[in-house]
Amino acid sequence: MFDPVEKLKEFIRHQSVSTDSKCKAGMEGAQEFVSSLLGSLGFTVEVVKTDLHPIIFAQRGGDAAWPHVVIYGHYDVQPADPLNLWKTPAFEPTIIGHRIYGRGAADNKGPLMTNITAVARLLEENPALPLRITFLVEGEEEMGSPSFEKFLVSHKDRLKTADFVYLSDTGIPNEQQVVITSGLRGLALFDVHVTGPKGDLHSGLHGGVLRNPIQALAEILATLHTPEGRVNVPGFYDGVLDVHPWEREELRKLGADEAAYKKFLGIDTFYTTPGFSPFESQRFQPTLEINGIGGGYQGEGTKTVIPSKAFAKISCRLVPNQEPARIKRIVMETIRARTPSGVKVEFVDQHKGDPYIVVPPGRSNTPANQSPVLAHAFRATDAAVTAVWGRPPLYLREGGSVPIIADIKRVTGLDSVMFGLFLPEDNLHAPNEGFSLEIMKKGIETTKRILAAVAAG
Amino acid sequence: MFDPVEKLKEFIRHQSVSTDSKCKAGMEGAQEFVSSLLGSLGFTVEVVKTDLHPIIFAQRGGDAAWPHVVIYGHYDVQPADPLNLWKTPAFEPTIIGHRIYGRGAADNKGPLMTNITAVARLLEENPALPLRITFLVEGEEEMGSPSFEKFLVSHKDRLKTADFVYLSDTGIPNEQQVVITSGLRGLALFDVHVTGPKGDLHSGLHGGVLRNPIQALAEILATLHTPEGRVNVPGFYDGVLDVHPWEREELRKLGADEAAYKKFLGIDTFYTTPGFSPFESQRFQPTLEINGIGGGYQGEGTKTVIPSKAFAKISCRLVPNQEPARIKRIVMETIRARTPSGVKVEFVDQHKGDPYIVVPPGRSNTPANQSPVLAHAFRATDAAVTAVWGRPPLYLREGGSVPIIADIKRVTGLDSVMFGLFLPEDNLHAPNEGFSLEIMKKGIETTKRILAAVAAG
Repeated sequence: MFDPVEKLKEFIRHQSVSTDSKCKAGMEGAQEFVSSLLGSLGFTVEVVKTDLHPIIFAQRGGDAAWPHVVIYGHYDVQPADPLNLWKTPAFEPTIIGHRIYGRGAADNKGPLMTNITAVARLLEENPALPLRITFLVEGEEEMGSPSFEKFLVSHKDRLKTADFVYLSDTGIPNEQQVVITSGLRGLALFDVHVTGPKGDLHSGLHGGVLRNPIQALAEILATLHTPEGRVNVPGFYDGVLDVHPWEREELRKLGADEAAYKKFLGIDTFYTTPGFSPFESQRFQPTLEINGIGGGYQGEGTKTVIPSKAFAKISCRLVPNQEPARIKRIVMETIRARTPSGVKVEFVDQHKGDPYIVVPPGRSNTPANQSPVLAHAFRATDAAVTAVWGRPPLYLREGGSVPIIADIKRVTGLDSVMFGLFLPEDNLHAPNEGFSLEIMKKGIETTKRILAAVAAG
Repeated sequence: MFDPVEKLKEFIRHQSVSTDSKCKAGMEGAQEFVSSLLGSLGFTVEVVKTDLHPIIFAQRGGDAAWPHVVIYGHYDVQPADPLNLWKTPAFEPTIIGHRIYGRGAADNKGPLMTNITAVARLLEENPALPLRITFLVEGEEEMGSPSFEKFLVSHKDRLKTADFVYLSDTGIPNEQQVVITSGLRGLALFDVHVTGPKGDLHSGLHGGVLRNPIQALAEILATLHTPEGRVNVPGFYDGVLDVHPWEREELRKLGADEAAYKKFLGIDTFYTTPGFSPFESQRFQPTLEINGIGGGYQGEGTKTVIPSKAFAKISCRLVPNQEPARIKRIVMETIRARTPSGVKVEFVDQHKGDPYIVVPPGRSNTPANQSPVLAHAFRATDAAVTAVWGRPPLYLREGGSVPIIADIKRVTGLDSVMFGLFLPEDNLHAPNEGFSLEIMKKGIETTKRILAAVAAG
């Protein structure tokens, strides 16, 4: 039996940044690492080619009467920059106390390794376990899974034999409280490019004559929120699902501390959707964020130019039942309508993803036609978490996005049990990403119990 | 006698970017090139150390009764980036038709070489020329001449024996029409830094909770202009000098073509100070420009962060009688007052420079106490330009800044005759900077005649 921490270190060392064409070797290394590990556990591993990064499709078959779980994960990671803000090397895993640091430690290499280890131990203890398992590990999650839907369609028949999807790519509030994620926000991303004069100009010779594209971009972006914090795009909130009372109740049980959260963020004032607490706003309300902006001279000292171009990278987080394509369209239309004279605006489309919601059994709004195996898996999860962590999980929607969860539902009809493992301090998508090895240990035991219970039926 | 074009090529090859610490060798090379050239003409060359880049102080003495002209220039250049937009190598001078391309070709290496060549030829023809000449060539013009005022103060007594300053570091509208610059805009530059959360955050997990510093910066910047094009900072226009009727008349004589100018800029609409034509606005009105902006992720693809920081580089072009220190203070105060909650704003001060105006003899507002040698120099310039170019020069204020002209006036009392040489298409401070060799040829002849006339008294 392998040591999961040593395996995780090996996994992190592969620089698998899917959006960076310079990381080809790291992507291949990470894929081969996962494929060979699953192969060593007796899985039949298929490496499914895509236009970009292959998908690992690894199966443990069995009697068609056995339950069938699909375990999802991804081997790609976010870019590591700005590198100068890392306290330990981004791709050299470093253990400090009970935490391991490195890009991808939490998103998603640590949690994926947790679930692979649980399966390995379960099969070691009971090689005849009556459970069909399919690992589905992709390499394009951090770029919006552009190849995943095509894969789902082509593998639809083989996936439809499954009962539910199980994954750990969501968060929990602290080391004591497990959360099963009952919803995810969707995404709509694009870049805005503003062009003014045909070339950069001397701001002395030509200043006072034309509109500066940075100024125009700032004027456009400044209109996209109300002073109170709502997204100021007509139609943006159309169709947003009301929050169900049991959801607010779960959040109350969470007992999150606003003062501590402010301190964690390093801010003195929240800026939320009006009428929602910060914890409600980040789970139940959509956003429009500017993820990056650039234009003109950004170097040392000064350069007195009026630049030709400026751009911003925009992402919207969406909630049920916002439709990403419609949101992109109305935000782009709004930007176009608010573009001042003297500059041109253009868009570069990026990826998108649907929002998702799943209601666990026993809630007043649980769908009547919920799959019995899914309901059983939820109950097994409840029991396993209570046994290992000493208290039952909470069922909460969260602010992050795993767009493929909605894709899986749409294409195959499968719902997902999302067993959260990473902490707020794990710094996902940011410098000094880390993952708790204590949580990994408990996570392995929990997943083992859940899968054993599902197998037992 | 040297070939001025070959000498200019040699000069351009020295990568003398004063703001870039990687260009130390280029700065030294350019300085030694000018020093040795002036030495070869019989000048006594002093290389005056400063905190950064030395000032070349080269003198041809003579009888105290002889007129004394100070010829100013600078050997430093702007940064060359973005390099990918250059059609020829930035630091390998390339002649295409009658134009030479390379960083610094027009600003200021070509014009300075024009005046050095004129002096060389004049002294070759008449070694006993009754004219004292001081070359004053600095290496910090493109960074705002931070050492120049200290130098002026320490060399005040030696400079006060001069009658006027002569320089070519301003522009002309086309190859036919010379302009003697009668005024320059001043400068006030600083950077704004906006900080939100203490680190970059995942926009899914934390989006909807706090103000994004890019959004805050955009909201601040968007308030700094009115939709009509005025700078929207209380007190910004206080003290701005009215335009004198003869100045508007000179501009009318220029007969500039708005449609052609739009085409040159590549814009479809002007955006000027209300009540001023574009040509008036760029000469007689102040500006506030955003020269650069940056924050968050600017790379390939997407990175869904809420960044911790964003910044903008701001420069104001000022006109008589705006005071740069006051303008900086009120713009910073306005930005601070308009900073929304949840973010912090900080400033990094950059350089500044006073605006300048000089009124040639014979204009209704010529000062009564104007120096007779200055008045004679203006008349000599008028005659030389008329003879060489076939039409008299126009006297126009221009939008660019040579802050040391106002410093010289303040410290030594000397006014400047600014003989413009570069064209709109010379792309100063931008990729594909170039300079006309035809203008260089005529410029050499003109400067020769002016200095000969001044010497003749």
